[in-house]
Amino acid sequence: MIIDCHGHVSPPAELWAYKASILSHRGEHGRRINEITDAEILHYANKVEMAPCGHMDMLHRVGTDMQMLSPRPFQMMHSMKPNRVVHWFTEETNNIIARQTQLFPKTFRGVCGLPQSPGISPKDCLPYLEKCVKEQGFVGCLINPDPGEGGGSQTPPLGDRYWYPLYEKLCELDIVGHIHSAGCRSDRLSYSLHFINEESIAVVSLLNSSVFKDFPKLKIVMSHGGGAIPYQYGRFEASSIRQGRERFSDRMRNLYYDTVLYSADALALLFKTVGADRCMFGTERPGIGTVKDPKTGKWLDETRHIIESFEWLSAAEKKMIFEDTAKKVFKIEA
Amino acid sequence: MIIDCHGHVSPPAELWAYKASILSHRGEHGRRINEITDAEILHYANKVEMAPCGHMDMLHRVGTDMQMLSPRPFQMMHSMKPNRVVHWFTEETNNIIARQTQLFPKTFRGVCGLPQSPGISPKDCLPYLEKCVKEQGFVGCLINPDPGEGGGSQTPPLGDRYWYPLYEKLCELDIVGHIHSAGCRSDRLSYSLHFINEESIAVVSLLNSSVFKDFPKLKIVMSHGGGAIPYQYGRFEASSIRQGRERFSDRMRNLYYDTVLYSADALALLFKTVGADRCMFGTERPGIGTVKDPKTGKWLDETRHIIESFEWLSAAEKKMIFEDTAKKVFKIEA
Amino acid sequence: MIIDCHGHVSPPAELWAYKASILSHRGEHGRRINEITDAEILHYANKVEMAPCGHMDMLHRVGTDMQMLSPRPFQMMHSMKPNRVVHWFTEETNNIIARQTQLFPKTFRGVCGLPQSPGISPKDCLPYLEKCVKEQGFVGCLINPDPGEGGGSQTPPLGDRYWYPLYEKLCELDIVGHIHSAGCRSDRLSYSLHFINEESIAVVSLLNSSVFKDFPKLKIVMSHGGGAIPYQYGRFEASSIRQGRERFSDRMRNLYYDTVLYSADALALLFKTVGADRCMFGTERPGIGTVKDPKTGKWLDETRHIIESFEWLSAAEKKMIFEDTAKKVFKIEA
Amino acid sequence: MIIDCHGHVSPPAELWAYKASILSHRGEHGRRINEITDAEILHYANKVEMAPCGHMDMLHRVGTDMQMLSPRPFQMMHSMKPNRVVHWFTEETNNIIARQTQLFPKTFRGVCGLPQSPGISPKDCLPYLEKCVKEQGFVGCLINPDPGEGGGSQTPPLGDRYWYPLYEKLCELDIVGHIHSAGCRSDRLSYSLHFINEESIAVVSLLNSSVFKDFPKLKIVMSHGGGAIPYQYGRFEASSIRQGRERFSDRMRNLYYDTVLYSADALALLFKTVGADRCMFGTERPGIGTVKDPKTGKWLDETRHIIESFEWLSAAEKKMIFEDTAKKVFKIEA
Amino acid sequence: MIIDCHGHVSPPAELWAYKASILSHRGEHGRRINEITDAEILHYANKVEMAPCGHMDMLHRVGTDMQMLSPRPFQMMHSMKPNRVVHWFTEETNNIIARQTQLFPKTFRGVCGLPQSPGISPKDCLPYLEKCVKEQGFVGCLINPDPGEGGGSQTPPLGDRYWYPLYEKLCELDIVGHIHSAGCRSDRLSYSLHFINEESIAVVSLLNSSVFKDFPKLKIVMSHGGGAIPYQYGRFEASSIRQGRERFSDRMRNLYYDTVLYSADALALLFKTVGADRCMFGTERPGIGTVKDPKTGKWLDETRHIIESFEWLSAAEKKMIFEDTAKKVFKIEA
Amino acid sequence: MIIDCHGHVSPPAELWAYKASILSHRGEHGRRINEITDAEILHYANKVEMAPCGHMDMLHRVGTDMQMLSPRPFQMMHSMKPNRVVHWFTEETNNIIARQTQLFPKTFRGVCGLPQSPGISPKDCLPYLEKCVKEQGFVGCLINPDPGEGGGSQTPPLGDRYWYPLYEKLCELDIVGHIHSAGCRSDRLSYSLHFINEESIAVVSLLNSSVFKDFPKLKIVMSHGGGAIPYQYGRFEASSIRQGRERFSDRMRNLYYDTVLYSADALALLFKTVGADRCMFGTERPGIGTVKDPKTGKWLDETRHIIESFEWLSAAEKKMIFEDTAKKVFKIEA
Repeated sequence: MIIDCHGHVSPPAELWAYKASILSHRGEHGRRINEITDAEILHYANKVEMAPCGHMDMLHRVGTDMQMLSPRPFQMMHSMKPNRVVHWFTEETNNIIARQTQLFPKTFRGVCGLPQSPGISPKDCLPYLEKCVKEQGFVGCLINPDPGEGGGSQTPPLGDRYWYPLYEKLCELDIVGHIHSAGCRSDRLSYSLHFINEESIAVVSLLNSSVFKDFPKLKIVMSHGGGAIPYQYGRFEASSIRQGRERFSDRMRNLYYDTVLYSADALALLFKTVGADRCMFGTERPGIGTVKDPKTGKWLDETRHIIESFEWLSAAEKKMIFEDTAKKVFKIEA
Repeated sequence: MIIDCHGHVSPPAELWAYKASILSHRGEHGRRINEITDAEILHYANKVEMAPCGHMDMLHRVGTDMQMLSPRPFQMMHSMKPNRVVHWFTEETNNIIARQTQLFPKTFRGVCGLPQSPGISPKDCLPYLEKCVKEQGFVGCLINPDPGEGGGSQTPPLGDRYWYPLYEKLCELDIVGHIHSAGCRSDRLSYSLHFINEESIAVVSLLNSSVFKDFPKLKIVMSHGGGAIPYQYGRFEASSIRQGRERFSDRMRNLYYDTVLYSADALALLFKTVGADRCMFGTERPGIGTVKDPKTGKWLDETRHIIESFEWLSAAEKKMIFEDTAKKVFKIEA
Repeated sequence: MIIDCHGHVSPPAELWAYKASILSHRGEHGRRINEITDAEILHYANKVEMAPCGHMDMLHRVGTDMQMLSPRPFQMMHSMKPNRVVHWFTEETNNIIARQTQLFPKTFRGVCGLPQSPGISPKDCLPYLEKCVKEQGFVGCLINPDPGEGGGSQTPPLGDRYWYPLYEKLCELDIVGHIHSAGCRSDRLSYSLHFINEESIAVVSLLNSSVFKDFPKLKIVMSHGGGAIPYQYGRFEASSIRQGRERFSDRMRNLYYDTVLYSADALALLFKTVGADRCMFGTERPGIGTVKDPKTGKWLDETRHIIESFEWLSAAEKKMIFEDTAKKVFKIEA
Repeated sequence: MIIDCHGHVSPPAELWAYKASILSHRGEHGRRINEITDAEILHYANKVEMAPCGHMDMLHRVGTDMQMLSPRPFQMMHSMKPNRVVHWFTEETNNIIARQTQLFPKTFRGVCGLPQSPGISPKDCLPYLEKCVKEQGFVGCLINPDPGEGGGSQTPPLGDRYWYPLYEKLCELDIVGHIHSAGCRSDRLSYSLHFINEESIAVVSLLNSSVFKDFPKLKIVMSHGGGAIPYQYGRFEASSIRQGRERFSDRMRNLYYDTVLYSADALALLFKTVGADRCMFGTERPGIGTVKDPKTGKWLDETRHIIESFEWLSAAEKKMIFEDTAKKVFKIEA
Repeated sequence: MIIDCHGHVSPPAELWAYKASILSHRGEHGRRINEITDAEILHYANKVEMAPCGHMDMLHRVGTDMQMLSPRPFQMMHSMKPNRVVHWFTEETNNIIARQTQLFPKTFRGVCGLPQSPGISPKDCLPYLEKCVKEQGFVGCLINPDPGEGGGSQTPPLGDRYWYPLYEKLCELDIVGHIHSAGCRSDRLSYSLHFINEESIAVVSLLNSSVFKDFPKLKIVMSHGGGAIPYQYGRFEASSIRQGRERFSDRMRNLYYDTVLYSADALALLFKTVGADRCMFGTERPGIGTVKDPKTGKWLDETRHIIESFEWLSAAEKKMIFEDTAKKVFKIEA
Repeated sequence: MIIDCHGHVSPPAELWAYKASILSHRGEHGRRINEITDAEILHYANKVEMAPCGHMDMLHRVGTDMQMLSPRPFQMMHSMKPNRVVHWFTEETNNIIARQTQLFPKTFRGVCGLPQSPGISPKDCLPYLEKCVKEQGFVGCLINPDPGEGGGSQTPPLGDRYWYPLYEKLCELDIVGHIHSAGCRSDRLSYSLHFINEESIAVVSLLNSSVFKDFPKLKIVMSHGGGAIPYQYGRFEASSIRQGRERFSDRMRNLYYDTVLYSADALALLFKTVGADRCMFGTERPGIGTVKDPKTGKWLDETRHIIESFEWLSAAEKKMIFEDTAKKVFKIEA
């Protein structure tokens, strides 16, 4: 069984029209969204948009059996005002995901978004998160370490006690926290690179803090193979040795990493650095990597065959990557 | 011959006392610095400080023949006010470097710092840079892509025309621009991780711009193996294919990368991704990696043997990495 | 013939999805918008959305023959960054309008939006405006007197010479400037009330300035019956008499006013205060007033019958309001 | 009996000299004000200043029997710092008013100002307000909905619970809250137009909130005929019908409106829109409208004859407007 | 003959009412000021206000023959917005002074205020200054080194080339620049102490600059005996000796100092430190020192007798202080 | 016996290198400081640096027997971020002072610095202060009235209750508070003049407050002879008489003043104004005044002979200045 732990929903266009509208009327027209039928959700779940086939076909073509489905992060606009608008849009997005997971119960599991806002404690999201899990069946949530979205408002890094109420709730609900920043308002870098930089900050801040001592059961998945850190870990290793702390490389194994990288060398580096048992297959497909490489004729996000071709990985390790770890972490019984 | 393209000066303590003082009197006591003798420079060039041996010995122990010597970046305080203080400290630091290269002509070549300030055009540094090269023999300069040091003031990224006067001067003087950020005033990450994130921004901004079309002879060295990008390049590759542009991976070869990474897998990834001919041996020794790994008994920044052990690199490629490329790029005739 | 001088386009949902996307990726995905077919434009021009019938039917039901069609202002997001995003969205919206006017040449004339931004001179919009008029046949443009959208950035009021390049171009092209603010980011009032307040500021600023002396041929239409001013003009009249200037009430006749008011008393006040010859029939239908009054069974924006019922207006005056003035001002030859 | 519910005090020049001084020394000279004698108050109450006759004569000439006297709003400088200065000036102004009402007990009743400051809860004004009412006999107070005076500091609108302590106290003391903004620091509009815009915001915010459900006995008088709203109420009516709420036009009757409008059509619109029973005669005389219209030879603020000439108003309604409602609302037993 | 080089005008209350009004309407009522008659000016020039006798009597009682008359600085509000208001108030104040000097030609000479604003070059004041001198006969002007009035906006200190256009004009017109700050918006100190601190900054900045080299004929009078500097000059002397510059104490003699100090020891210190030939008698009477000391029965600002009692001063020196220097500097021929 | 109540430590250069480093790494390298040996402390306590002899010799040459030793204020950088860095540097500086006082128990007593930060209550420093006194034997502490160092962040002045917890602790520990500002980030004045201005603010704020009524045993020493105030006290005396308060000159005797002034006239003024019994000999030697006057051949800070030469001071008064008051205030039993 192939489980893709990192996918984003393909919702009906009505959701985007809703976003466009509430961003502008700021709640003045009330919360209402035009009704979206199951038929529309089914249609858009496989509609041909930017690629030659739709979302479901995308998965089938590369043999993916199940995908963890979350909001499309760059669209989440956590830094927008007023907060109620962020709240509404997050909820409507999650609602679409929840319905889609019910319409395709074998294919999708839901990872919900949180209505984060810069300057507002993550604590405020917890009642809603609990509802998502208990009433809508979500098995994890996205966590944006920078709800200010690269703008002026700075949020404490993930190792800070600021985030403890969220970690406590994740443990209590026994669900996964998936680290993934959203938009980026800086003129210096795109949201896509901001993802990577924020992941590097998240890894270093979490591992240099006492979070995993205080929450030994916390399950955190780092997007995009952990930003720069598996490649750059040596400088942090050096500091940890100098300070006589547990080696940074050992602490790196407190996290899970998805494989949303699109080159064989990067994938190999990841497995060797953090251990195959801390990695979960992920593609973000359809997404940024959904483009055919003219040299190979393959999609860049079609990475399963790369991993399968690594002879130095055992079959058991490969099964861990493709299936077992995701099943354990996301509690998938199927 | 082994050339380390990335090393930072070990100056007399008097330079730090000078920094402490001018930061506080802000120029009120005038520019004067206590006299520093050649004997002191010689002494500190090999003084035992944080490590069991001094700078010169550090190099000898691992067989390094020559090192490019620049200011220690985290100390450079580009965001401090008033500007004259940054100017003075940069000049005094460069002066120490110039004297040290004269005292050890076989071992050191100088890469100067620039008195950059947020909000002030790099153009203003050019007359001084020219003097450094023509009068003091510097063969390159550090470029801080974020003189605001992670604070409120945002500088356009390196692909912006804001930096063109500097690139033009680098070409005219035929010297190297070495990308290396300095301090970091954010509470979210350390200066050390800020280096990495800024390098990622620098690589992407430069390669997505027309800088190398406009300055085909420009020589830019990326510190620390190019930040996250050799590991994460797949997502940028995908975008370039989608947009029908020259592949990002091909454009990556417009830059040079040092090998200041402290793990074999990372070094291998770098060579494979950008090509051995675009890499130059570098260690930052003595520096963050100058710590002995209790497992191996080796210094983490003692990476020469790792590279030498890569059987899939040819002898010619290794020679390029250790010697030839640096000689060509820095115009070392020795 | 009944001409409605104030209507906003009902575009395909794809336009809103485009807006949602570019606001988040900020241009990173490039400018591209999914193709929109004529069939889609035709479909949405009469799609049942918030009301029991579509846009075209809305007009037919109340006997409107022609409508001036402009972007829906609250969606225009002039204060968003970066500017290119505002530019793209404005252009794509105008493109839909231009195509719709071509598809329904008897029913629609286009009034384009301008890519205004706070802090950027309206001068920068002029080349684009010229293209809209000369290549796409627009007969007027919206002018947002507050592109900062009630946020921190304050734009000089319309009587300021800041706006002169725009007025000059309007005269040169002989087209109409239609004053209409866009969104409102303040927590104190909705965009809908902000329209009214901005119109009041616009009327007072224009009439207390020398704009109409300097541009005697300038054609400005005030939305929503001129904000508060026809009701409140007495206090400005008093000041003008005290200062020995031309009476404010006389100067009010330099402007045109649409009739987008939804009560008989307000309409009567408007005609009596500014003169029937300065008024043009307008409804914004479908829009905020498109709701049936349970008391009367009529749409609130179905105001034609009210005007027709005013016995104190002559037939010629009514024809001016419904047809002649719009034909003259917008140069409609049909 | 003719009661003018909206008049502002004509104080001795010493009060202005006091203001000029405390604004500059900011309290350094202490609170002291030069003694003002009853003779001076009497003198200035009828001194010829900007008009051909003094305040008392102004009233007599148009047959006004009684006037509610409050501070002159544009002078109140609520946004000035430090707060004590605002406090002192407000108190001294109220003291003059209180003395003037004692000197002319048949002619004046006092409406006090409040020492409001942006960012400071109206709760802080309540002990002083209570003193004004209980010790000095004030029958109402001005409420500035924008103590930031059009500057950077935004105060929640009047429907917000921020204002509840004030409403509670108004009910407890059974006095009137008279909505009237003060100065305006924006370069886009004058304080006089700011009055109108703030009244529009106040009406909409109050009526769209639950204030009158929570305080059914609250007595609020809107200045200047309610800003733009009686003219523009249609768009709010439409929203209320669409949302299935009580009609906006019905809710408008929760407020009282003064008749400080200077045209017959505007007065007629007001009475017809909100009902004669919700209106109180007011002139602000002497004030902005105290200028003779060369066409009619009448003062613009001489509006009593206009109202009396409305044949469609019954005598009882006229009596309500001129006398009964004010007596009831302000509890005037005379 | 006794000349008091530092006095401030006692204008009719109408000037303060004007200030109070324009600060609030911000120019909306136009520039007009109520007419002020010569009789009023004469009346207020000797009106009993805060002291037992009026301004003229104040001078006579202590035997002052002539006084330099300038605006009362703490009232000048240079930091207020909009600028036109500062401009108008400055001009009206100067107009009163000019008229008063014409009404009392033997007693008063005028020193005008400048319409300074933070962030606006002093250059902009020069045409007006020229008019004051050439048309109204002013013999000097006040210079506020801190038009930001202790608020957020910082103006370069007086030694900066920012002020050169003003110095050039002073030399060209051959008039005196009298350094005197105005209000102070800080909560940490009063305007009165701010005077002293700003004078200290002014003295040090001017003397450590090249102003007096570049303008050898510049005539600058320091208020209040030069702030702290005559008392604290030792630390600046030390720096000048260390740096090998002309002694600070010698450079201090480039300035003139008034004697607005209210103790014998302070006066003695001043004369001994800067030299009697650089001092001019001044009292600011009536002003802060106009209070009777219960111990001595004398006014604190009645300092003439103190100076006369200094036996160590020669008669010629005393005449310089009381008369000769002022005559020379202000070019008084009487 | 000669006691100098105002001296600053001459620490090993390692302390400055530490400062330079932590300012840049902001704590990332941990708190560690290189070991400083007693030998180094002894060496630097008498090292020849900017003057022809070292610190100890400096004292001996002028016959000083004992000196109160505190951190060198301009180096203390209270406004730097993050706070921990200020904390560490303050503590390490105090540690050097404590060790130096132990190494020279007859010569030095320690006055510690406090880790003040703008915006952080002085209350937070108290546990550390208590430790300094009880464990390290400090007999007083420096108090910086402006930890924002002339930058944007304003701290309430010393008369404000904000400082009461500190005063309470000073009384409880029975130690001295020595007022001395630190750096100055303004471009308008140097830190040295900022000392003076802040002392003036401190004196006026303390004496105009109720601090000495509320803390009658509080011992406060004003640096540099009390800023401008002994010279300028007349204007404050006038205000106190006008307001009927205790005379300012009497209240001035609540404070102690050091004699860090470098001219005979200034010293005389100080003694005469505040009384010899409120003055303590102080020189700041070696410091700003440690320069030889070519005219006299004496150091400017060699002021003992000046005081001794004042014939109008009694021997008892001189002993108070040089010895008795310091002994009493600092509780020196030697």
